[in-house]
Amino acid sequence: MTFSAQILTLYPEMFPGPLGQSLAGRALAEGLWSCEATNIRDFATDRHRSVDDTPAGGGPGMVLRADVVAAAIDGVANGTPVLAMTPRGRSLTQDRVRALASGPGVTILCGRFEGFDERLFEGRAIEEVSIGDYILSGGETAALVLLDACVRLLPGVMGAALSGDDESFESGLLEHPHYTRPPVWEGKAIPEVLRSGDHAKIAAWRSERSEMDTRSRRPDLWERYSSARGQSPSGARTRKQDE
Amino acid sequence: MTFSAQILTLYPEMFPGPLGQSLAGRALAEGLWSCEATNIRDFATDRHRSVDDTPAGGGPGMVLRADVVAAAIDGVANGTPVLAMTPRGRSLTQDRVRALASGPGVTILCGRFEGFDERLFEGRAIEEVSIGDYILSGGETAALVLLDACVRLLPGVMGAALSGDDESFESGLLEHPHYTRPPVWEGKAIPEVLRSGDHAKIAAWRSERSEMDTRSRRPDLWERYSSARGQSPSGARTRKQDE
Repeated sequence: MTFSAQILTLYPEMFPGPLGQSLAGRALAEGLWSCEATNIRDFATDRHRSVDDTPAGGGPGMVLRADVVAAAIDGVANGTPVLAMTPRGRSLTQDRVRALASGPGVTILCGRFEGFDERLFEGRAIEEVSIGDYILSGGETAALVLLDACVRLLPGVMGAALSGDDESFESGLLEHPHYTRPPVWEGKAIPEVLRSGDHAKIAAWRSERSEMDTRSRRPDLWERYSSARGQSPSGARTRKQDE
Repeated sequence: MTFSAQILTLYPEMFPGPLGQSLAGRALAEGLWSCEATNIRDFATDRHRSVDDTPAGGGPGMVLRADVVAAAIDGVANGTPVLAMTPRGRSLTQDRVRALASGPGVTILCGRFEGFDERLFEGRAIEEVSIGDYILSGGETAALVLLDACVRLLPGVMGAALSGDDESFESGLLEHPHYTRPPVWEGKAIPEVLRSGDHAKIAAWRSERSEMDTRSRRPDLWERYSSARGQSPSGARTRKQDE
């Protein structure tokens, strides 16, 4: 089954863009996913093809009109979930990416200017998604990120050996660090254990580094991980686990 | 002063990509920023132009070599901070974006495969940055996001009226919702207050919605905002504030 990516944007020429190359590009060429960008402006109804207007109540910038954007959504509807890329949305997680990638595809709404008329979200079933706590000039680069994250998980895109189960966030932890040749670089050697050939020891070292790095770099992730496992963030098991 | 964006990547043809259009594209054409992508492979030293090798200790995938990537960094060094896009990095925030945008530029390192040999981060001054808790096929789409966020803040890129101070995260809160014409759409009217012409009332409504939406949509942001202001997350002032 082909994963269908539909993008509603004022800049359809931005797609597939970087996703036309490398891993995602090969998958696109092989038909593992499809990518169709539609200009929201095609659904404007006046002779100026207006898509936006000034904010009610005043203020800088322009707001995308609910009527025009809703017509665009209705016009391309194909049963895939509709996502709007917006800083007001729910933070994107690897779990959500995995769920989307196992579905039929996505329809992604890219805003510009001051965003969408809020009534759009009352009038249509739209999931508001944020890729992070920073502001972009529009939803297009966010859509590229979301699609990149989904496409690499589609069956046949990564080799079987690269299932991605070891990656950061898949286990709720950051991934352990990696090393490769040369064995010594600028006086720094690859950790001894990784050259030992002892697979159990290597696995234990990696798991320990993964926990250690998550604890020091991302205390927020570590806390979530520990409480999900019934451990206190300090690493001690809670009474409930011991019983 | 021109903001310098240097990208080290195995896919230099992905840049400027979507940033060659719209707001960032106009700014690029006007010389408000520059964008130069360099192929890491140009710094390989063997006749196969190898940039990666198998992970020490075994496992799937390939790891980018510290020696080759360090040579690439040294080769393009121009005094701008070096950032590596990686899920193991510090979460990108609007504060960090604003600091970067007020500097001379950035040099961005884009990984592929299983990432970089960890010794690279001991041997060179590199800031590891993550744009969010999900996995991409490489750092390129993350670099586009980081650059998009920086470029819109450069002097002259947004109009003076669009200073962006009202945007989500700039105040530590999500932005309030927006509305525009038509006044009634599918039976849904623009909130009365926004059509009142009473600027004080409008400002109060927007500020209240901003707080309300942050509290319900992003309790994590709300908690940080409240404690920074010396309020408990419930909204009540702490004793310290009252004294």
